[in-house]
Amino acid sequence: MQAKARQVAVAVAGAGYWGTNLIRNFAACTKTRLVAVCDIDGARLSKACAAYPSVEPVQEFESLLRRSDVEAVAIATPVRTHAPLGLAALDAGKHVLLEKPLADSVGGAQALVNAARQNHLKLMVDHTFIFGAPVRRMKTLLDSGEIGELYFIDSVRINLGLFQHDVNVVWDLAPHDLSIIDHLLGRLPASVSACGACHTDRQHAIEDVAHLNLDFGDGLMASCHVNWLSPVKIRHFIVGGNKKSLVYNDLEPAEKLKVYDRGITISQDEDARRGVLVSYRTGDVWSPHLEQSEPLRSLVRHFAECIRDDRTPLTDGEAGLRVVRILDAAQRSIKAQGERMTL
Amino acid sequence: MQAKARQVAVAVAGAGYWGTNLIRNFAACTKTRLVAVCDIDGARLSKACAAYPSVEPVQEFESLLRRSDVEAVAIATPVRTHAPLGLAALDAGKHVLLEKPLADSVGGAQALVNAARQNHLKLMVDHTFIFGAPVRRMKTLLDSGEIGELYFIDSVRINLGLFQHDVNVVWDLAPHDLSIIDHLLGRLPASVSACGACHTDRQHAIEDVAHLNLDFGDGLMASCHVNWLSPVKIRHFIVGGNKKSLVYNDLEPAEKLKVYDRGITISQDEDARRGVLVSYRTGDVWSPHLEQSEPLRSLVRHFAECIRDDRTPLTDGEAGLRVVRILDAAQRSIKAQGERMTL
Amino acid sequence: MQAKARQVAVAVAGAGYWGTNLIRNFAACTKTRLVAVCDIDGARLSKACAAYPSVEPVQEFESLLRRSDVEAVAIATPVRTHAPLGLAALDAGKHVLLEKPLADSVGGAQALVNAARQNHLKLMVDHTFIFGAPVRRMKTLLDSGEIGELYFIDSVRINLGLFQHDVNVVWDLAPHDLSIIDHLLGRLPASVSACGACHTDRQHAIEDVAHLNLDFGDGLMASCHVNWLSPVKIRHFIVGGNKKSLVYNDLEPAEKLKVYDRGITISQDEDARRGVLVSYRTGDVWSPHLEQSEPLRSLVRHFAECIRDDRTPLTDGEAGLRVVRILDAAQRSIKAQGERMTL
Amino acid sequence: MQAKARQVAVAVAGAGYWGTNLIRNFAACTKTRLVAVCDIDGARLSKACAAYPSVEPVQEFESLLRRSDVEAVAIATPVRTHAPLGLAALDAGKHVLLEKPLADSVGGAQALVNAARQNHLKLMVDHTFIFGAPVRRMKTLLDSGEIGELYFIDSVRINLGLFQHDVNVVWDLAPHDLSIIDHLLGRLPASVSACGACHTDRQHAIEDVAHLNLDFGDGLMASCHVNWLSPVKIRHFIVGGNKKSLVYNDLEPAEKLKVYDRGITISQDEDARRGVLVSYRTGDVWSPHLEQSEPLRSLVRHFAECIRDDRTPLTDGEAGLRVVRILDAAQRSIKAQGERMTL
Repeated sequence: MQAKARQVAVAVAGAGYWGTNLIRNFAACTKTRLVAVCDIDGARLSKACAAYPSVEPVQEFESLLRRSDVEAVAIATPVRTHAPLGLAALDAGKHVLLEKPLADSVGGAQALVNAARQNHLKLMVDHTFIFGAPVRRMKTLLDSGEIGELYFIDSVRINLGLFQHDVNVVWDLAPHDLSIIDHLLGRLPASVSACGACHTDRQHAIEDVAHLNLDFGDGLMASCHVNWLSPVKIRHFIVGGNKKSLVYNDLEPAEKLKVYDRGITISQDEDARRGVLVSYRTGDVWSPHLEQSEPLRSLVRHFAECIRDDRTPLTDGEAGLRVVRILDAAQRSIKAQGERMTL
Repeated sequence: MQAKARQVAVAVAGAGYWGTNLIRNFAACTKTRLVAVCDIDGARLSKACAAYPSVEPVQEFESLLRRSDVEAVAIATPVRTHAPLGLAALDAGKHVLLEKPLADSVGGAQALVNAARQNHLKLMVDHTFIFGAPVRRMKTLLDSGEIGELYFIDSVRINLGLFQHDVNVVWDLAPHDLSIIDHLLGRLPASVSACGACHTDRQHAIEDVAHLNLDFGDGLMASCHVNWLSPVKIRHFIVGGNKKSLVYNDLEPAEKLKVYDRGITISQDEDARRGVLVSYRTGDVWSPHLEQSEPLRSLVRHFAECIRDDRTPLTDGEAGLRVVRILDAAQRSIKAQGERMTL
Repeated sequence: MQAKARQVAVAVAGAGYWGTNLIRNFAACTKTRLVAVCDIDGARLSKACAAYPSVEPVQEFESLLRRSDVEAVAIATPVRTHAPLGLAALDAGKHVLLEKPLADSVGGAQALVNAARQNHLKLMVDHTFIFGAPVRRMKTLLDSGEIGELYFIDSVRINLGLFQHDVNVVWDLAPHDLSIIDHLLGRLPASVSACGACHTDRQHAIEDVAHLNLDFGDGLMASCHVNWLSPVKIRHFIVGGNKKSLVYNDLEPAEKLKVYDRGITISQDEDARRGVLVSYRTGDVWSPHLEQSEPLRSLVRHFAECIRDDRTPLTDGEAGLRVVRILDAAQRSIKAQGERMTL
Repeated sequence: MQAKARQVAVAVAGAGYWGTNLIRNFAACTKTRLVAVCDIDGARLSKACAAYPSVEPVQEFESLLRRSDVEAVAIATPVRTHAPLGLAALDAGKHVLLEKPLADSVGGAQALVNAARQNHLKLMVDHTFIFGAPVRRMKTLLDSGEIGELYFIDSVRINLGLFQHDVNVVWDLAPHDLSIIDHLLGRLPASVSACGACHTDRQHAIEDVAHLNLDFGDGLMASCHVNWLSPVKIRHFIVGGNKKSLVYNDLEPAEKLKVYDRGITISQDEDARRGVLVSYRTGDVWSPHLEQSEPLRSLVRHFAECIRDDRTPLTDGEAGLRVVRILDAAQRSIKAQGERMTL
């Protein structure tokens, strides 16, 4: 009884591909109670709710907000609706979980952050990968100092895509990479440049291939290649450090994360003509065992715990805003022929 | 006797890692006769010549040029010496094969091209990959129209590097990628941008990580990631077309080249809200059998044939110059914070 | 209305791991109607039926048989119960789908085949892989003659296992390989030998590693390695022919089946010392596009169609019996120190 | 001077594929001096000696033996000649290194061992893999107890072969696997069974596919699959232990050896119905850094050191004899329809 009383009552808005995953996880989580699902498409709504007789299907978002028993709303709708729906929910006194990216503009994201702060409500962005075992382990390894000083991060996320009709490949795929980089480093880059190209939808100038480059101002450079036209699927994330390096291959079934005890040792040598000696170190490779739980399951639980315990979510509105700021800068850089944009 | 008479008499300058490969191939080629090898390091010179009793070891480059029986000189010396040594050889009436990149500046490369033209001598650059089976097959596939309109090229060439002490990672590794792209497309990009970072040798500002972006002005974008600090070695080259796509993985022992019958079909649909319909096509994958001959063997033979038959080499001075122009633009872009440089 | 009337009313017995998959597929198939699920474990039963309000959960198998509206029973219970439950269902006039292996003895399997024949009912065994795209494509390629004369088949199915407590690794894993081989060849081997070892459960002499060897009497040899103790998971199936060869790797996400245009050409040469000339042919590799549908979905539909259209299932009782005969011979061979058993 | 005096004077007999490798390594080793090479084929002999002006080429094996300055003979001739040539060399007072397998019969191998013992000479067999870093590391790991009790060894060595015209696939390929297994375990199996098939040369009954099974009598089973007809090349060696397991993939360029902290824990549980509880343990994977030296280089040096220091070679005649005994038993088993042969 006590346990039941402490469950967070949640409504999910948007019953598409990702909304369905949210519904399943909120229904299964012992810390949450799924009370309503909303979608404007009646057929999709019925299908999504079929297995959950106790969940109320509604077609109007406002009716979710009017329900006094709904404490929190999870929103998985098209990107352009994130800010207005999120603001409405926060104004109605609901905690909000927003699908990535947090909003389609810096202004929208900032408004969400402000509204949450003013209303003393939790705002969380669904940066799913942050809750997966590989990223959690990478974070631990970086924080422990085992990797040393960071030299570069390189992320490749390419495949023959599912086109999003309202955003380009940068706003669709790069939030994953940028949220991981943001989580690992905990700070904004100093500047961003990017280039992209449109092939399949030139009429609307929707980029389907793009390269982002983040400069952190101290020699650390991070790059992201996102691509909807690649014949092969690649999910490859390298963190190069001066002590060790990490390679995270999300498509590997068994050994997703590898720690390479390889690196470069630099010493000053007075006798050396060029004053610097570079030597290589090639050591063991180690692949830590990672638990195989679904990241979204942990995320949903974390959202409920943050509400109940009044804690700041790991991927709070600020994190979502930082990622949107980088996306926005990258988009402006693409339109400005790759001009470097200061953040 | 007749056959012997028609062999091209060659001297090799530079007996380091790559020079040794040239020596071996010129000695083995039936169309060439290796008469002399030059290196300023006496020990290295002796070692390189040990297996070739009939080859004269010399320590002074000029003495090669004075030998009237030497018709051609192959130069595999540090990059900064390419232009002066190549010009001296051309002025002495020798045909010249130069290790990549052709020169360390556009001016040097242009001077080499001019000198070869004025002296009616062959100038060839050692863009080795052009003579390998995978690139030859890609060229045939592209020229046949089977790939269709090109959308993007993406090349990744990263490893825990052998540092070159006189050039950065762009001038060391990117000539491979750029020479392949140049050969496949047969034209210069409209503009180039690049970013890079220095970690191991900040004192000399030698970049060890870099990303290049080539814009060909018609939607075709080519990118190269070159990196001396990667814990893993990757050689991955993707050509995305609207009919088919190619993936060339040079590290695959058996199936280096794959042709993907995958792509995107775009149709105009008046009824569609956004006016454009994008559909995916996923078909077979085909890996053509490739012969396993050493590319340098074919290159050396081609050099001899071009001299004897007065033909223009596949990788002539002009090709070498085009690659140097892109390298130079990329280098300038790096120093200018990624500013796009028009070619 | 007409369509509904023609749906086959099915009950599923056994709500464990595989039973759950059957339940999901029978519920989703438009040609079947799932009316009841049976399991002796009440908790497991409730959980399995939760999402299907119209399905009756029952704990006694006999009550399924008494329902006159049940036309067919799908049985996914422990192996030793296959024959008794299947016979009871056939005697009650129900069509039967049995999880692999068909039975735990030749006698049991033969009795099932006899009972189905006498009662004019369909008996089908759940050899799932036969309904997957890779095996269907291999069958087409073999039947077309493209592979030529078969030389060998080699199957490796190893992993850190899920132990079955009532069968050994041979009866647990080898039915997959043997059913594929049986389907591709359509005939019994002439003889079988096998060896195995027990490590984890020596007390009950449950083999956890085994090698089977099937001799088809005309030079064609098939081998299966099954193993519950392997640190790595491997699913590798090679068919070697004199024209082409096939490699089916079930763990490859994208290119599960490859056709190798490689082989050996044998010619008689009177001058050759040994009277025979062997030469190699190395050609292209081709990976046909395979649809990604769930094999069990096709199987369930096929079962319904065979009942409605009075057709013989692709994996009928005879196929199940042939596989049990090989398993039985292999088991006897293991106990007889690898003695070859004629079939 | 002193150093020179202590070099072992070696002659190599047989200048084919492997002989050429021996010549190169004996010429390069600082502990040996290559004085003569013998081959009955004059052209092959000239080619092999071209780079070594100080080496005497001879066409008659006996003339090697008559040279008083030759202390040791390395023999890389067809298998059937190993025993007669090796015995002749030992009788002439020369130390002998024999290409694998030591001989083509147990009798021949035993005679070689006896002759070496009687003449107080070193007899070594060229089991090359024993001197490679992966096998050396596996041996260290096994001897340390880290792997625990061994459960199984499984070796797969298949490719589209180079046919040997005087031996079948068992005598050609299995010596590699058997010598590794023998080295790791240090004892003979209790019994051997095998099956094989002939396709390409049925006239001479030369097996081109074979499976060997070695029973070590205490639950440890080792299997070898050797095959000249496989469209794909595989070199996969698994050692399964109760604490950890090893996977050695010789075709991996970078991580040839992996140590899996995975296994099975067995406990006796009085309450458990079956009296035994099996649980899985899935832990980290670790790939130790291995030096990349050529195994044959170490082998050649070890041969010289054993002669100079009067030590027993790691791969002495006894090791060669053990491997031949297993090969002989496997061959007899194949001819006897897989009957198990006691050793």
